[in-house]
Amino acid sequence: MSIKSMAATALALTLTLSTYAADAPILGFSAANAAKERAVESQLDSKINAQELRAWTDRLAARPHHLGSAYGKQNADFIASLFKSWGYDTAIERFDVLFPTPTTRVLELIAPEKYTAKLAEPSLPEDRSSGQTSEQLPVYNAYSIDGDVTGDLVYANYGVPADYDQLEKNGVDVRGKIVITRYGGSWRGIKPKVAAEHGAIGCIIYSDPRDDGYFQGDVYPKGAYRGEYGAQRGSVADMPVYPGDPLTPGVGSVPGAKRLDRKDATTLTKIPVLPISYADALPLLRALAGPVAPSDWRGALPITYHLGPGPSRVHLKVAFDWKTVPAYDVIARLRGSERPDEWIMRGNHHDAWVNGAGDPISGQVAMLEEAKAIGELAKAGSAPRRTIVYAAWDGEEPGLLGSTEWAETHDPELRQHLAVYINSDSTSRGFLDVEGSHTLERMVTEVARDVQDPERSVSVLERLRAREVTLAKSDEDRKQARDRELMRLDALGSGSDYTAFIDHLGIASMNVGYGGEGGGGSYHSIYDSIDHFTRFGDPGYVYGVVQAKTTGRMVLRLANADVLPFQAKTFADTVARYATEVMKLAEDTRAKTEQQNRDRRAMELAADPTRPFVAPKEQEPVPFINFAPLQNAVARLQKSATAFDSAVAALSDASAARQTEVNQAMQRLEQALINPEGLPNRPWFRHQIYAPGFYTGYGVKTLPGVRESIEQRKWNEIGPQIANVAAALDRYSTELDRAAGVAK
Amino acid sequence: MSIKSMAATALALTLTLSTYAADAPILGFSAANAAKERAVESQLDSKINAQELRAWTDRLAARPHHLGSAYGKQNADFIASLFKSWGYDTAIERFDVLFPTPTTRVLELIAPEKYTAKLAEPSLPEDRSSGQTSEQLPVYNAYSIDGDVTGDLVYANYGVPADYDQLEKNGVDVRGKIVITRYGGSWRGIKPKVAAEHGAIGCIIYSDPRDDGYFQGDVYPKGAYRGEYGAQRGSVADMPVYPGDPLTPGVGSVPGAKRLDRKDATTLTKIPVLPISYADALPLLRALAGPVAPSDWRGALPITYHLGPGPSRVHLKVAFDWKTVPAYDVIARLRGSERPDEWIMRGNHHDAWVNGAGDPISGQVAMLEEAKAIGELAKAGSAPRRTIVYAAWDGEEPGLLGSTEWAETHDPELRQHLAVYINSDSTSRGFLDVEGSHTLERMVTEVARDVQDPERSVSVLERLRAREVTLAKSDEDRKQARDRELMRLDALGSGSDYTAFIDHLGIASMNVGYGGEGGGGSYHSIYDSIDHFTRFGDPGYVYGVVQAKTTGRMVLRLANADVLPFQAKTFADTVARYATEVMKLAEDTRAKTEQQNRDRRAMELAADPTRPFVAPKEQEPVPFINFAPLQNAVARLQKSATAFDSAVAALSDASAARQTEVNQAMQRLEQALINPEGLPNRPWFRHQIYAPGFYTGYGVKTLPGVRESIEQRKWNEIGPQIANVAAALDRYSTELDRAAGVAK
Repeated sequence: MSIKSMAATALALTLTLSTYAADAPILGFSAANAAKERAVESQLDSKINAQELRAWTDRLAARPHHLGSAYGKQNADFIASLFKSWGYDTAIERFDVLFPTPTTRVLELIAPEKYTAKLAEPSLPEDRSSGQTSEQLPVYNAYSIDGDVTGDLVYANYGVPADYDQLEKNGVDVRGKIVITRYGGSWRGIKPKVAAEHGAIGCIIYSDPRDDGYFQGDVYPKGAYRGEYGAQRGSVADMPVYPGDPLTPGVGSVPGAKRLDRKDATTLTKIPVLPISYADALPLLRALAGPVAPSDWRGALPITYHLGPGPSRVHLKVAFDWKTVPAYDVIARLRGSERPDEWIMRGNHHDAWVNGAGDPISGQVAMLEEAKAIGELAKAGSAPRRTIVYAAWDGEEPGLLGSTEWAETHDPELRQHLAVYINSDSTSRGFLDVEGSHTLERMVTEVARDVQDPERSVSVLERLRAREVTLAKSDEDRKQARDRELMRLDALGSGSDYTAFIDHLGIASMNVGYGGEGGGGSYHSIYDSIDHFTRFGDPGYVYGVVQAKTTGRMVLRLANADVLPFQAKTFADTVARYATEVMKLAEDTRAKTEQQNRDRRAMELAADPTRPFVAPKEQEPVPFINFAPLQNAVARLQKSATAFDSAVAALSDASAARQTEVNQAMQRLEQALINPEGLPNRPWFRHQIYAPGFYTGYGVKTLPGVRESIEQRKWNEIGPQIANVAAALDRYSTELDRAAGVAK
Repeated sequence: MSIKSMAATALALTLTLSTYAADAPILGFSAANAAKERAVESQLDSKINAQELRAWTDRLAARPHHLGSAYGKQNADFIASLFKSWGYDTAIERFDVLFPTPTTRVLELIAPEKYTAKLAEPSLPEDRSSGQTSEQLPVYNAYSIDGDVTGDLVYANYGVPADYDQLEKNGVDVRGKIVITRYGGSWRGIKPKVAAEHGAIGCIIYSDPRDDGYFQGDVYPKGAYRGEYGAQRGSVADMPVYPGDPLTPGVGSVPGAKRLDRKDATTLTKIPVLPISYADALPLLRALAGPVAPSDWRGALPITYHLGPGPSRVHLKVAFDWKTVPAYDVIARLRGSERPDEWIMRGNHHDAWVNGAGDPISGQVAMLEEAKAIGELAKAGSAPRRTIVYAAWDGEEPGLLGSTEWAETHDPELRQHLAVYINSDSTSRGFLDVEGSHTLERMVTEVARDVQDPERSVSVLERLRAREVTLAKSDEDRKQARDRELMRLDALGSGSDYTAFIDHLGIASMNVGYGGEGGGGSYHSIYDSIDHFTRFGDPGYVYGVVQAKTTGRMVLRLANADVLPFQAKTFADTVARYATEVMKLAEDTRAKTEQQNRDRRAMELAADPTRPFVAPKEQEPVPFINFAPLQNAVARLQKSATAFDSAVAALSDASAARQTEVNQAMQRLEQALINPEGLPNRPWFRHQIYAPGFYTGYGVKTLPGVRESIEQRKWNEIGPQIANVAAALDRYSTELDRAAGVAK
C-alpha cells in the first residue's frame, strides 16, 4: 500500500470508529463479551453524577489537609468509610515518613535598599477557605536544608543547566552568590540542585507573571490566575534520584525499616531554598545591575531584567522542624470473580498542600465516584473478573511518599499480581490527556472513542484529535494528528504516584486526566480552593463526570477482558521511534559541537566589546557511536511483537486455561524492561525505556540511559547503556515469543 | 564542480580577499587605475576625523530643526556654506509643500474611569536640549486628518491585516470603534490605513515597553531606551501609494505646479491618528475587557492584555494647521574631470523631528566629512572622473518630501545622467548594513573588504560575516554566511530618500549605514539629542568615521572606475531567487488554503465554548498559475547577464570611447525595470523588482506586482503582473545583449 492509500484507510477507519462506536470491537474481548462489557459500561455511566463529586469536594477540601495534618487523617478515614460502604475490602496502611515544616523563613534585601519579603498569601473575602490561616502550611519548599546565607543576587532564569552556560557567556559566576530563578522550564527541584552544582549558596524560586500571573490572564479573584502575593509551595527533594521518604530509599518506611541518618540522605537539597511571590521578587530583581538578561529570560514584571551579580544583596534564612509524621494510604480491594490473582490498580492522592480542591481533590472525587459505581455494579451481579485495587495516597505532595513507600513495601506481590496501574491527579475542563506504557495505546484509543465530550457532540477522542490538528506546528504533525489511527500516548516522566509502579517495579502504568481549558494559577497555593475550582477549574463538575466515565471504562475493560488489552506492536514502533531519536540526537550533537567549535572565533568577532562576553569553551568532539546492538534489538522486537499480536488476537475465544497462561505472561511483560542495577547514578530508577530526566525532574527521558549519556556528553557511559537497553528489549522479545508460543 | 568543492573555493577566495586586500583587484578598474584608486582612498581616510563630526553635530542638532522651522533653514544655509567652502557648485532648491502641525490634541479615557493623556515628553536635567520646549514639535502623526471621535476601544496589536483576522476569530469587530495599536510589525502609516479599511473611526499608536522601552534595556537617562512618557512622532501618510507632497503626486511642488485639493489627496489618513507614550496607554489598556489577547500580542505592561471592545471608552480629538511650508534641499556638485555627464549622487536628509542628533545628523555629518575630503582631494589634483552630486534633503521626516519633489522635478536629466544614488540616514555603532540594487553586490563587498572595523582588528566585511554566522537560524543560513563569496544585499523597501530614485525613476540605488550596537529608544523623540547620541549611539563618533570611509570609497570607486562596477549576474541570480520564492509562495498559499478550509471543523471542535470563537471563513481555492513567462525571462536574463559580465570584464583596458558607450548603456540599465504604468493601484511605484509593501510600508516586496497579487489573493491580477515582470526582465536582457555587443 502506498502512503497515500494507507492514510485514506486510516482516515476511513477513524470515521468508522467514531460513527459506529456501538458495534466496534473492543480489544481483548470476544464479540459476546464485548457486548456484555458495553452493557456494564452503560450502567457505569448512569451511576455517575456531578452532585456527589461536589459534595465530596465540600467535605475533603473544606480545610487544609496536608500530610501529617489532623484533617488529612480525617479525610483518609472518610475515604475509607466510603469504600467500605461500597463493599470494598478496605484498610488504611500507615508509613512513618520524614516531613520537615518551616520554623523560620526570612528573606531580606539588605542592599542597595531594604526590603523584607512578606512570604504570605493574603486572605480574600471572595475565597471562603483562604482565611483558615491557623491550619495552612506557610509558603516553603519541602526538603530544603536549614540555612542562613547572605550574598549578592544573580538572576538565573529557569535555573536549568543551559541557563548557567548563558550566564558564563555573559561573564557571570554564581559561586558564593544567591540565585533567584523563576518557576517553569523544569520541575522546581532541579533549580536548587543545579544552582548548588555551580557553587551558589542559596536559591530563591519565584513565580514570574509571564509564566504564572497577569500575563496569562486576569488574576484571582477577578480571574483564575496567580496574583501578586500568590506563591507556589512544593517539594525540592532530588526526586530524579529517588522519590519517597528521603531516609528509606528502596524500602518501605514501616516500623523497623533501616533508616538513613538525615545527613546521609542524598535527596535533600545542598543549599537553602525558598519560594516567593512576584510582589516579593520585584524589589530584588529591580535592584539588580550587570548585563541585561537575554530576551527569552525576561519576564512580565515592569522592569529591565538584569543578571547581576548584585548590587542586590540578600539575606536568606530558613530552618525546619525535621519531624517524622504518619502517612495514611487508603487501600480498597474488590475481589475478582474469575481471576482474583490478576490485579488492576487505580490510585489518586488525597493529601494537598493546603485545601487542594483542584490538586488532588478534583481527581480524588472522580475516582471515588467511579469506585462507587463499580462497587454497585458488583453488588448488582456484575462483579469484575479480575481484582480491582483502589488507592487514595497520602504524602504525594512532599515527594510521592505514600505511593512509593507502599509500592516498595509490597514489591514482590505487586510484581506477581499487578497487571496495570492507572493513576490520576488533578483534572479539569478540557481535553483528555493520557500518558503511559505504549502497549496500552489501542485500549486507551478505544475508550476515548466511546466517551462523549460534554462541550461538543463528539467523542473525547475526536475532540482531542481536533485540538492536535489546530495546535500542530508542522504539516507532518498535522497529518499525524488527523490520520494516525491511534491516539498517541506520551511517555510517563514523573510528578505523580505512578512513578514507583512504572519506574521502580516495571508495572505497565498510565496517568489519565482532563485539562487545558480550566486556566488558573492556584497551583499549590491557598487559593486552590472550592471557590476557585468551581468558578474556573470545572464548573458543575462536568469534566469530573467525564473523567470518572473514562477511567471507569479503563478499569472495567482491564478487569473484564478475556485477554489483557495490550498490543506489543504499538510499543515496538514507539521504541523504534525513540531509537531513531537518540541516534539523531548523537548526530545533531556532533554537528552542533563541530559548529560551535568552528564558530567560536566568529562569536568573538561579532561580540560587542563594551559588554562582557566569554566565548564557549572548545568542546571535545562527539565520537561515532555503535548503535547496532540497539538497532538489532529493535528489529527483533518489531518482529516478535507482530507475531505476538497476531497470536493473541485469535485468543479471545480460546479456553480459560490458555487465556490465563497468556494473561499471566502479559502482566509480567513490562517487567522485562527493568534492569535491577538501575540507571547511572540512580539505581532506584530501573526502567530502561522511560524515566524522568535527571535535569528535568518531571519531564520524561525515553531510553534514559542512552539519551542522558549523550546529553551529558558521557561518552564512556553510552556503550554500556546501549547494551542495557538492547538486553532489556531482548528480554521483552523473548517473553513475547514465549507467550506467542502459548497463545498459538 | 560539486557543491562541496565550490564552497571550498569560495572559502579560499574569502580568505584571500580579506588577507591580501592591498593587492586585490577592484571591479571596474584596470590594474594601473586600481593602484591609483587605492592611493586616493588612502588619502581619503587620512582626511576623515571624528572631531569635525562632533563639531558639526553640535551645530546642526543644537536646536529643533524640523521642516519649516527657522533653525532648519539655518542648517540648510550652514550646510550649503560648508559645501561651497570645499569647492562644490552649491545651490539651495526650494519646494513648497503641505505640512500640517497640530493645533489641538486631546485624548481622554471617559469610561469606566477618567484619564486625560499627558501627550508630552518631560524635560530631563541629564539631557540639555530636552528643555527647548518652545521650538519642539509636539508628539503627533503628520498627515492624520482632523477629527473628533468618541468610541469604545479595541486593542489591535500591531494593526496589520493578519491582526484583524485574529480579532475576527475572537468575535471582535472594530466598526465604529477606536483602535489602539502598538508601534512595530509594520511601518506606522499602515496602522490607521488598515484600521480605516476595517471600519474603525480613530487610531491610537503607542510604544509598548516590550518593543520600545524597559523590556529592551534600562530607560533614559539611566540607559538608552524609551521611558514611560517617551513617544514616537512620525508620518502616517499612505506612502506605499506615493511619497512626497500629498498635493503633487508625480510632479515637483515648484511654483505653478498642479496641486490637488486637500480633499482629493489620497495619501492623507481616513481617520484621525495620535501617537502616545506607554504611560498614557496604560490606563486605557488596563480598563479593557473582552477576550484575553493572544499570547504574542501581549506587551510588557504589567497588566492582562484584553481585546475589548470597551468598557474603555475614549475621546480622541486632533486638529491641524494645514499650512504650506518651504523645504530647502542643498544640492552640491563636483564636476567630473573626464566624464562630467555621468553622475554619481549621494544624499542624506537634514531635517529632524526635533533635535535629531541621531536621525538624521549622525548620517549627515558623516556625509559632510566624506564630501569635505573628496573636495580637498579634488583641489589637490585628484578630481573625480565622473561628476559627484551631494544632496542634503529637507522634509524627509514628514514623507520624503525634499528628495521626492527634487527627483520628480529633475526627472529627465536624472534619467539621462545619473548612474547610482547612494543614500544614508542615521548611523551608529555596530555592523555595516547595505541595501540596494543587486548589480552593486560585488562593488559593495570589495569596499567592505577594504574598510577596517574599529572595534575588532578585521575588515567590516569579516565582522559582518561573523555576525551573520552567529545569528544564523539554520545550517543553510550559517553556511551561506560563512561561505558565500559576496556580501548579500537586502533589497530596498522604503523609509528614506532613495525611494524616488529607485522606485520612481529606476536609478540603481543603495542605502548604507552602520548599527546594531547603539541600542536606544530615542527615535523621533525629544531625546534624540547630542547627549543621548554621544552616550549611546556612537560615543567618540568612531563609527561615523567608518561610515565616511565606507561611503567615501563607494562614491570614489563609482566616480573613478573605468567601467561602472556593476555585475549583471548577481542581479540575475537574485531575481531567480525571488522567482523561486513567489512560486513557492503560491504553492504554500494553496496548501495553506486547503488546510484551513479542511481544518475549520477541527477548529470549531477544539474551541473553548465559553469563549467567543469564529472559525475563519471558507476561502476560495488558489488556482494553478502560469509562471512560465517569468521562468523564461529569468532563464534568458541569466544567460545574457553571464555574457555581459564577461564582455565587460575585458573592457577596462579598452579605448575611452568604447568605455563611454558601455558606461552610458550601463547607467540606464536599471531603468529597463521600470514600467510606466506602475504597480496595481499605485502608478507612482514603477520598479518591477523592488517596492515597499502595500501593507508593510517600509518592508520590501520583491517582484511586488506578483507577490502582492498572491498575498492579497487577487487571482485575476497575477497573470498580467507576471507578464509585466517578464517584459521588464526581457527589456533588461535586451539592454545587456546590446551593451555586451558594444563591449566585445
